[in-house]
Amino acid sequence: MTATTVNDTTVTDSTANATAANATAGAGLDQRTVELDRAFVFHSWSAQGALNPLVIAGGLGSRVWDNAGRSYLDFSSQLVNVNIGHQHPAVVKAIIDEVGTLATVAPSTANLARGEAAKRIVGRAPERFNKVFFTNGGADAIENAIRMARLHTGRDKVLSTYRSYHGNTGSAIVATGDWRRIPNEFARGHVHFFGPYLYRSEFWATSPEQECERALRHLERMIQSEGPTSIAAVLIESIPGTAGVLVPPPGYLAGVRALCDRYGILLILDEVMAGFGRTGRWFAFEGYDVVPDLITFAKGVNSGYVPTGGVIISDSIAHTFDTSVFPGGLTYSGHPLAMASIVAALDAMEDEGIVENAARIGRDVLAPGLAELQAKHPVIGEVRGEGVFWALELVADRETREPLNGAVMGRIKAELLGRGLLPFLADNRIHVVPPCVVTDDEVAEALAVYDEVLGLDLLN
Amino acid sequence: MTATTVNDTTVTDSTANATAANATAGAGLDQRTVELDRAFVFHSWSAQGALNPLVIAGGLGSRVWDNAGRSYLDFSSQLVNVNIGHQHPAVVKAIIDEVGTLATVAPSTANLARGEAAKRIVGRAPERFNKVFFTNGGADAIENAIRMARLHTGRDKVLSTYRSYHGNTGSAIVATGDWRRIPNEFARGHVHFFGPYLYRSEFWATSPEQECERALRHLERMIQSEGPTSIAAVLIESIPGTAGVLVPPPGYLAGVRALCDRYGILLILDEVMAGFGRTGRWFAFEGYDVVPDLITFAKGVNSGYVPTGGVIISDSIAHTFDTSVFPGGLTYSGHPLAMASIVAALDAMEDEGIVENAARIGRDVLAPGLAELQAKHPVIGEVRGEGVFWALELVADRETREPLNGAVMGRIKAELLGRGLLPFLADNRIHVVPPCVVTDDEVAEALAVYDEVLGLDLLN
Repeated sequence: MTATTVNDTTVTDSTANATAANATAGAGLDQRTVELDRAFVFHSWSAQGALNPLVIAGGLGSRVWDNAGRSYLDFSSQLVNVNIGHQHPAVVKAIIDEVGTLATVAPSTANLARGEAAKRIVGRAPERFNKVFFTNGGADAIENAIRMARLHTGRDKVLSTYRSYHGNTGSAIVATGDWRRIPNEFARGHVHFFGPYLYRSEFWATSPEQECERALRHLERMIQSEGPTSIAAVLIESIPGTAGVLVPPPGYLAGVRALCDRYGILLILDEVMAGFGRTGRWFAFEGYDVVPDLITFAKGVNSGYVPTGGVIISDSIAHTFDTSVFPGGLTYSGHPLAMASIVAALDAMEDEGIVENAARIGRDVLAPGLAELQAKHPVIGEVRGEGVFWALELVADRETREPLNGAVMGRIKAELLGRGLLPFLADNRIHVVPPCVVTDDEVAEALAVYDEVLGLDLLN
Repeated sequence: MTATTVNDTTVTDSTANATAANATAGAGLDQRTVELDRAFVFHSWSAQGALNPLVIAGGLGSRVWDNAGRSYLDFSSQLVNVNIGHQHPAVVKAIIDEVGTLATVAPSTANLARGEAAKRIVGRAPERFNKVFFTNGGADAIENAIRMARLHTGRDKVLSTYRSYHGNTGSAIVATGDWRRIPNEFARGHVHFFGPYLYRSEFWATSPEQECERALRHLERMIQSEGPTSIAAVLIESIPGTAGVLVPPPGYLAGVRALCDRYGILLILDEVMAGFGRTGRWFAFEGYDVVPDLITFAKGVNSGYVPTGGVIISDSIAHTFDTSVFPGGLTYSGHPLAMASIVAALDAMEDEGIVENAARIGRDVLAPGLAELQAKHPVIGEVRGEGVFWALELVADRETREPLNGAVMGRIKAELLGRGLLPFLADNRIHVVPPCVVTDDEVAEALAVYDEVLGLDLLN
């Protein structure tokens, strides 16, 4: 596949001229977009000097495009958040209706869209979860979950894994384990441990069972060594996402729950990236025989159409704040546009079987398709995932599992983009994370692009 | 004034019946709204047990209403954010247009609305400010400003005042000085000092000149005692807002700047509440002969129609990150709907002279009107403010300046609401903070309500 134009049109001489004129005008608009960006916009997680950002001017479903007519299959879901696909008409309409009624309101008021959104979210959660605290995104969801855990337990420490990402604010970034934590370590009470990751085991394990058992033993030793009565919560992504779609081995999450119960520690499951359809389930932790005490969410709950996030609170923790003041809050908590978009997104996901589609695509199309790629391309060291949440771990050598270096990953990114596929790359991995609405044909198209690019002579 | 119906209509017998039926249906909807809220929504800064949230279902300009037909003059601007008033048609239209084009996009891309928004914001800032980093709100703007200051200086400590509010996330809540900091003190590197507040001077001062001189002396002694080379930034609200609209005495902000320069410390001015028109100026610090190094914003920039905020970055700090990676970011940074609403809001504020209106209302209507109330009601200990940013400090005794207690403040709130005025109360103060578009008549209406309520026999 090469970059294609947005609309398939029958080209006559006159329309060809019009199309050419449009493309020229579009290219001008793209250029202006990049110029304004480079002049005035400061970018995340980057050195600002050499950025050359891609213009995305529109989208629909699993596809996005610029003004000049280049289109891309979005196998990134942007930042793994557009679960419902781009420009879903029901969600767009809900935002238009709400903005025409009441664009903003203080969180202390009662707002119908907010109640309806909370009801739907609670309806997807386990039984003893009945309250939602809304935030602006995933990071402040984590901040507030940690706050609740500390105040509920009267304990300070939060244990989270080195291979994790929990957000960008004060506590969330220090709870994060990856390199982004290091220049930001100004919060106290955070301790990191190793989670299971058989392909690069920290525990010298050789089977999923052994990895699980040893990872749990390691966590228990960490708890004992840090002092169980000092620990408020264990905070983990149900499936660590940016860290590599690290699907936990069977028994691990249930084992963490058992350890938490043994030592009186709360379990916070971070479902910001993994939740709301990404895995082919409403929550990633379903099917792992585990019920957490707090659940954080953002991204997929409304596919990021309006910034939002939140914490789903189990009854016992909610009751702690029946009589004592919860010392957290924010101006845009339960923002009407965000709430209306949650209601519409969750209803559409249910009505249109979008979560089921993600499950089916994962099981029947991506799992076999990616396995085939792995069989064909030695550069793929491991394939992991479920639903529309997969990682291809790329290695310079299958034997040593040496990660593919950044320069080669940069070339891969350029080659994928050049073939009309917008990828999600992290370290030495390609994350295969299309919207949950992706079709069989679109997956086939993407697999062909991955196949072609991974077949290039990458290492030279 | 009593609570009025939303629309003035000529009432005939049949329309009277229809109106009654609508009011009944509306009351039912209000009841359902509150029921859903109490069942499923966890509220900010509150004990959850005894909440009875007000329903707000719609609004226009400086007025909001519920479904049953009760309307309120919004002299809170919700959380002091709806500067442009409710449901400004140009901002509503911009959101509708953008959501129909592209509701969400990753921050790493280039987006035209984002570039246009950043250009307009930079256009309002002092000369050597040319980059904007967008966040989801004020708290994460503070988080990222602190991050930039620490990385730029290589120093840790951040000095902020006890009478301040900077947001709800890890570092922002600890930078905050008020009680909300205390249950959340899990960030390190924060030190608090006292700012100027002549009415309750921490420095035994008896004149604005003396308060200014002594507050600066106190800050310098704090800097010297903490160790100047350990301090990355002084972080202050240009005019502390929630803490009481503490307009600084002449010379204070310039004096802080001089101290920062003397000791190589950065100055972060928090304009989240005070910025974008609230004071009758685009930025509150204008006219105080001070240029900061970093400016944080949120609220008024788009009146909260879509959650957003950010940091305006001076060139020298921006250049630090030309070649080294800035270790901060978030999924919804520069969100298209937020960006489109900023563009429309700032253009409308300029085209319609909204900032000038706020200045005029402050100077010609609120200043004399509130002074008159103070002359009449001994319960008003002090009146402070400018533009549409005022506080009435209520006291049990003018001599001792004993703050009015919470129970009485609760009664005042109920009496104001009962007369169709939605107030903003903080501690022993009424903050008079209508939208910047408020009219002379609306102010007159509100002043009459304040007058009536403050004339009640409040203390018995």
